[in-house]
Amino acid sequence: MGNKIRGVYLVTDRPLCHWHSLAEVVRQAALGGVSLVQLREKETDSREFFELAKQLKEVLTPFQIPLLINDRLDICLAAGADGVHLGQSDLPWREARRILGNDAIIGLSLETKEDFHSLMKIDPNPPLDYLAVSPVFDTETKTNTKPAWGLTGVQWLREKTTLPIVAIGGIKESNAKEVIEAGADSLAVVSAICSAKDPKLTTEILSTKFL
Amino acid sequence: MGNKIRGVYLVTDRPLCHWHSLAEVVRQAALGGVSLVQLREKETDSREFFELAKQLKEVLTPFQIPLLINDRLDICLAAGADGVHLGQSDLPWREARRILGNDAIIGLSLETKEDFHSLMKIDPNPPLDYLAVSPVFDTETKTNTKPAWGLTGVQWLREKTTLPIVAIGGIKESNAKEVIEAGADSLAVVSAICSAKDPKLTTEILSTKFL
Repeated sequence: MGNKIRGVYLVTDRPLCHWHSLAEVVRQAALGGVSLVQLREKETDSREFFELAKQLKEVLTPFQIPLLINDRLDICLAAGADGVHLGQSDLPWREARRILGNDAIIGLSLETKEDFHSLMKIDPNPPLDYLAVSPVFDTETKTNTKPAWGLTGVQWLREKTTLPIVAIGGIKESNAKEVIEAGADSLAVVSAICSAKDPKLTTEILSTKFL
Repeated sequence: MGNKIRGVYLVTDRPLCHWHSLAEVVRQAALGGVSLVQLREKETDSREFFELAKQLKEVLTPFQIPLLINDRLDICLAAGADGVHLGQSDLPWREARRILGNDAIIGLSLETKEDFHSLMKIDPNPPLDYLAVSPVFDTETKTNTKPAWGLTGVQWLREKTTLPIVAIGGIKESNAKEVIEAGADSLAVVSAICSAKDPKLTTEILSTKFL
């Protein structure tokens, strides 16, 4: 807890990495100033997920950029990653905090305002490192998501919490500034970086939006 | 390590539970003398997997029957289960032992003789609680498995290791005795118990084969 969450946040998507390997995309994003990387794998077996996590951890360690794992605490523990990103159908965040300890970065994805209200009922001051607004805009990257929060949704959450807000879904150069102005501390990006021919440049451009 | 593995070992398969809920199948198997239960879920999200594990742990605790989780160490940790069953494409068993500690039950599935040789190369005396011969016989329950070991495969492994051997795949009342005589310490059963109208009776009958 207490980890500073700010800046460009890369969420990986291997099928979108047309130009480079996943490790190379991550390395270039690191050179471009990415602040956090989340390894997201949905169809991979545990062994391969673990190997990928170790590989990315190796890429990121010299940059001192934290690596989070989507959903899988066991992959996080085995690969020595820095934390997990949890969705509403993943393990409960309290179990995750108990298992990973206070130093781990744990972020929780909120799909609806109701998710936020439920969280506040459990703990009005939850030991989480960030809340993710998902999705801010409609996107084709992640399926089965609820209606988009929109900029007004980000503003709504900004007024309700002092926790860092990570905005995810449909974020690109053209809308990045307004998402930050709506209250997001961090912009989570999937396709804009993964599918970029020059992931370093894309990350740099997005990073300048925080200046 | 050092957990006694012997007797009937139930591996769950919810789609096969036609007659009863999963919890009821497990409760009846416990009443019938099952020695170990492994929760196996392949398509479930982490939250539901966790809830199922907690439910089965509650059923089994009064019987002092251990609950293992297939593949997922994080579900094991979160639900307070007793260990994990690892396949060849799951997390490496050494990571699992490091994370779960010495008291956890950790079993490793061997699909081929080569898997055994690889294991011996890593550690000729591996800190594992059992080796699973998978599959002993061809089966429709688990797809994409390698050629069956057969009884001669069980005998082969029996001569090579002092670790408990769990036989899995196509085991039923009619062949149980010969699998034990070939050297298996434990019979892992999926459909014979899950799809039984009377899981308690089926478990009892299989248990008598160890007398």
